[in-house]
Amino acid sequence: MQQYTVTFLPDNIRITVPAGTSLLEAAAWAGVGVKSTCGGQGTCKRCIVRVKDGHVTAEGNSLPATMRAKGYALACRTQVAGQVTVEIPPEARLVEHRVLLRDEGPAAEGKEKEDLLGGRPIRPLCEAVRLRLDPPTLTENASDWHRLRGALRRQRPDEDFAIGLSALQELAEGLRRADWQVKVVLTSFNTTGQVIRVAPADAPGVYGLAVDLGTTTVAAALVDLERGEVLGQGGTYNRQARFGDDIISRIIHADTKEEGLHELRKAALASINEVAADLLAKCRVAPEEVVAAVVAGNTTMSHLFLGLTPKYIRLQPYIPTTAEYPLLRASEVGLNIHPAAPVLVFPSVASYVGGDIVSGTLFTRLGHSDELVLFVDIGTNGEMVLGNREWLMACACSAGPAFEGAGITCGMRAMEGAIERVEIDPATSEVRVKVIGNTRPVGICGSGLIDALAKLRRAGILDRMGNFMPEKGGRRLRRGEEGYEFVLAWKEETGTGKDIVLTEGDVKNLLRSKGAVFAGIRSLLKTLDLPQEAIDKIVIAGGFGNYLNIDNAVEIGLLPDLPREKYRFAGNTSLKGAVQVLLCRDAWEEALEIGRKMTYLELSVGNLFMEEFVSALFLPHTDLELFPSLIGERKGGSNSWPGV
Amino acid sequence: MQQYTVTFLPDNIRITVPAGTSLLEAAAWAGVGVKSTCGGQGTCKRCIVRVKDGHVTAEGNSLPATMRAKGYALACRTQVAGQVTVEIPPEARLVEHRVLLRDEGPAAEGKEKEDLLGGRPIRPLCEAVRLRLDPPTLTENASDWHRLRGALRRQRPDEDFAIGLSALQELAEGLRRADWQVKVVLTSFNTTGQVIRVAPADAPGVYGLAVDLGTTTVAAALVDLERGEVLGQGGTYNRQARFGDDIISRIIHADTKEEGLHELRKAALASINEVAADLLAKCRVAPEEVVAAVVAGNTTMSHLFLGLTPKYIRLQPYIPTTAEYPLLRASEVGLNIHPAAPVLVFPSVASYVGGDIVSGTLFTRLGHSDELVLFVDIGTNGEMVLGNREWLMACACSAGPAFEGAGITCGMRAMEGAIERVEIDPATSEVRVKVIGNTRPVGICGSGLIDALAKLRRAGILDRMGNFMPEKGGRRLRRGEEGYEFVLAWKEETGTGKDIVLTEGDVKNLLRSKGAVFAGIRSLLKTLDLPQEAIDKIVIAGGFGNYLNIDNAVEIGLLPDLPREKYRFAGNTSLKGAVQVLLCRDAWEEALEIGRKMTYLELSVGNLFMEEFVSALFLPHTDLELFPSLIGERKGGSNSWPGV
Repeated sequence: MQQYTVTFLPDNIRITVPAGTSLLEAAAWAGVGVKSTCGGQGTCKRCIVRVKDGHVTAEGNSLPATMRAKGYALACRTQVAGQVTVEIPPEARLVEHRVLLRDEGPAAEGKEKEDLLGGRPIRPLCEAVRLRLDPPTLTENASDWHRLRGALRRQRPDEDFAIGLSALQELAEGLRRADWQVKVVLTSFNTTGQVIRVAPADAPGVYGLAVDLGTTTVAAALVDLERGEVLGQGGTYNRQARFGDDIISRIIHADTKEEGLHELRKAALASINEVAADLLAKCRVAPEEVVAAVVAGNTTMSHLFLGLTPKYIRLQPYIPTTAEYPLLRASEVGLNIHPAAPVLVFPSVASYVGGDIVSGTLFTRLGHSDELVLFVDIGTNGEMVLGNREWLMACACSAGPAFEGAGITCGMRAMEGAIERVEIDPATSEVRVKVIGNTRPVGICGSGLIDALAKLRRAGILDRMGNFMPEKGGRRLRRGEEGYEFVLAWKEETGTGKDIVLTEGDVKNLLRSKGAVFAGIRSLLKTLDLPQEAIDKIVIAGGFGNYLNIDNAVEIGLLPDLPREKYRFAGNTSLKGAVQVLLCRDAWEEALEIGRKMTYLELSVGNLFMEEFVSALFLPHTDLELFPSLIGERKGGSNSWPGV
Repeated sequence: MQQYTVTFLPDNIRITVPAGTSLLEAAAWAGVGVKSTCGGQGTCKRCIVRVKDGHVTAEGNSLPATMRAKGYALACRTQVAGQVTVEIPPEARLVEHRVLLRDEGPAAEGKEKEDLLGGRPIRPLCEAVRLRLDPPTLTENASDWHRLRGALRRQRPDEDFAIGLSALQELAEGLRRADWQVKVVLTSFNTTGQVIRVAPADAPGVYGLAVDLGTTTVAAALVDLERGEVLGQGGTYNRQARFGDDIISRIIHADTKEEGLHELRKAALASINEVAADLLAKCRVAPEEVVAAVVAGNTTMSHLFLGLTPKYIRLQPYIPTTAEYPLLRASEVGLNIHPAAPVLVFPSVASYVGGDIVSGTLFTRLGHSDELVLFVDIGTNGEMVLGNREWLMACACSAGPAFEGAGITCGMRAMEGAIERVEIDPATSEVRVKVIGNTRPVGICGSGLIDALAKLRRAGILDRMGNFMPEKGGRRLRRGEEGYEFVLAWKEETGTGKDIVLTEGDVKNLLRSKGAVFAGIRSLLKTLDLPQEAIDKIVIAGGFGNYLNIDNAVEIGLLPDLPREKYRFAGNTSLKGAVQVLLCRDAWEEALEIGRKMTYLELSVGNLFMEEFVSALFLPHTDLELFPSLIGERKGGSNSWPGV
């Protein structure tokens, strides 16, 4: 078959592909990130690129004629038919995601360590034992493993010891290279110590990798297990994004495409391995020195990571293959660390309450609290846990990825070029925005969207049902192709040369998302017959949570109207829980307990959720009694909201 | 690089290889079996082929000029330099080995089953449990694994259950395809049942694979674990043979060639997978229905099979990586059966007393005997165990592969065309031979060599020191290039068109081999301060053993001169012990016990073995008192030996 070269601008990356390859696939092969939400169906229109030169064929290129005339094309629906030069516009670029790991604000070294352990003593998943062995002789000719095990038993008489194939394959040379003076890295489950690695006695530390495998981003932390310290953290976007932005489109890809599951598994692994490689290089740690990994992800991500079909997670009655994952080794999973390293995957509670939530619950110590705590994680989905030391109940609502920018005309993830704060002058309807990276804006991310909704409502440009009020919007409110739209930034100010707008459709999408989260919280409370005020503490988790302006989130009816001092930001609790397990194996037992103990509230059973959801599709809600502080403000007619 | 086609006759198989490839390598790539003992060093001269046409270059082709003139060449030292046609003569062809599995003589069905179990009750390594599960609903929405484990626990309240990754990957579809009525295949170690496979309730049997991984041959048996029956047996030669015939040349290959260990591992796997595939096809069993494997091999074979370096097995003080192998899964080992199937590898005792001997000891129930039993396995090496229910002592002597035909001018393995019986008329020195397959002879195998030595000695053609007596040999004894040689078959009678001879050098080789075995037996007895007569029973194992004429073996001083009724042939005890473990998991515990309990006598320590060896380099021995029956016969001057 004829092969052609495709050149991607502005990075000037070239790749040779067979004729007929879509530009989206060519970009994926070339490692050039191009956005795509619909899995290449031609419907999400996020993969718009510009063909600068060369021959392509298009199939169902549904862009307006004016755009097509300028060379714009849907990458997924455009096929290579000759040498081609393609420009990826900023809004279609899948650039590195700002991954929030460290808590914001000053955190003392000492405090951070204490936080990570949740008050537990350090008892790491793996530890090193240093031994001096007698070399074998003709009369003392036991096998290498027998010799090593004997020495281990003399040092720890109460334990037995085992070794797996990959560690055994290294053993003979390892012992002799070390001249029989070795550092043995062990992990213990039950009373059997498993030998992972045999290194020279003076080999450097013992390291573990904590991973938060999110639908959108993958974050990892490298942990020194001997010192109990986080050496470094890093993140990247999940390479699965090219098969669809949200969980459902990935499940469909896994189920309907031949090799789909395999592709998604490989993409998840590639994401983790890449972020781990960067982290290891930065910290000057060799892959074989990393002797344990703990992975937290939602149920679908955990399934895809392990090659388990997610098909029945999507279909009623929503059944995962498993809630608890077997103890695995890096070699069978495919992680590029020591092949014999144990890999623990956090247990799930149900199809839509996964290991990331169990990890977050572990880290935030809900199960130890005398107070009633609500834990809310708003990511691609919205999950929440309510409980205390006696009981835990969780639910998940399909909030959708609107707060991550998906399904929103100019939506984008929280990365460079995203509008993250919006101010609107109620008198003039003029707008001021704050952009991540202080560059020209190319889109708007979740926190910007919440700000925009709150400010538009406050300025009276949006009514309570989410309709635009033409008489209030000034010159920025106009009629677009699909109804009214509000211009947040004029094309002269943006990085794309196009206006950044919020449409009526976008507002409806956002209302559905925020309504789902609020209805989820209400459903938990109603099921337990508890008033909103019974909540003593609300912990907000997720990368998203760090940007969230609580007042604005309450004002649009996303979060309950409770005293602001009850709110806490906990950051990436999924990753932090994984770090905790690396440093304290007792935490793993607790995680298993949490997974088993937590009650799952299936919101699709009965009418409770649906009724709450319909009531929450307003700004902020049909029942204003639920928002006392808001009523007070409104009554006073004040405009003194704590602003941006 | 220039590529050329090599055509191998008589099979007319073609392969394209780069210029410079040796004919031996080309044959290996083409799957054409060519003998080679020295690992391609040009020294064993077993890979002589005939270049019929085309261009080759030769490097150190040490064949006589007369042969070279006829196109004969060492395949390992001859490189492709153009299109070539090569004929593989019968004596250089590596054809299928006659693998002896079934005991000779009539064995009743019932008796065979009892024999295989050694009186134990059937308690197979894996078993099937049939379950009817309730399909999940929105309110009964536990994960698939949780549902299955719950049902298993209800049926067996005292056990816990676990599942590994590969079984988990099949679980969701498996349960639904079976419409929730399943056959669960489990294996139990400790009190945890490991789920291997979930199949529809009406799926056929539960099968296991027993493997004897020999240096020369690989034998396997397919066992129905539910019925306790051997369904079929098969064998092939070990594909590692192309890297050298004996253990030492394979260890050197593994150690000195890049990828050498990997090549040997792959060859062992290919051999097992091929014999298993044939067996499965013959018995109409699908690979995923085979849910357990038990492998018995000598220490080096077990190491190579698992990718463990055998380097230190060869070097003083002869240390294997391990004597006990971890419980493995088929997927990590590379066996083409169910990926989650457990694979048990028999433990070794020492570097040269391996799992095949432990398996044989298990099967022959030495450890249960009140009598003193000597177990002798003469294969590529000679291993022996002496003991009873109270103690077991083993040793290994480097008997060398002479009795397998290696290192003998016209030696070959026991396969079609091999002389297996020899008669010599003492009066005329004329010879009658019996050939395997009743074809024209192409060489002579172990049992034929023992016969030949015994008959040549009896006819006075060989003296006690193994020298030919020119005055006695008649026209068949002549001077060859390297001293005297005796013609067993004239070229007009053979399949090679060349005389089949036994040279003075061959006789010395055979004396060394038989002397080593006898010295090993003597060393065991002397170490334990026991007279030869203390032995109550001698069990002869190995494919070789089945052909052995005891009288002749005693006459040449290979085996001790004890009443013939004390001798037993046990066949392939290595394979039979593996079958026993498949059918009875208690036998596995016993195998581990045997491995730990058996005392290893290292013959290279001290002078004991060497002194015994020197005394045993005669026909039959320096000490004729050890051979009373022989003295009696000699004294009587009778020629009434039980002949062929």
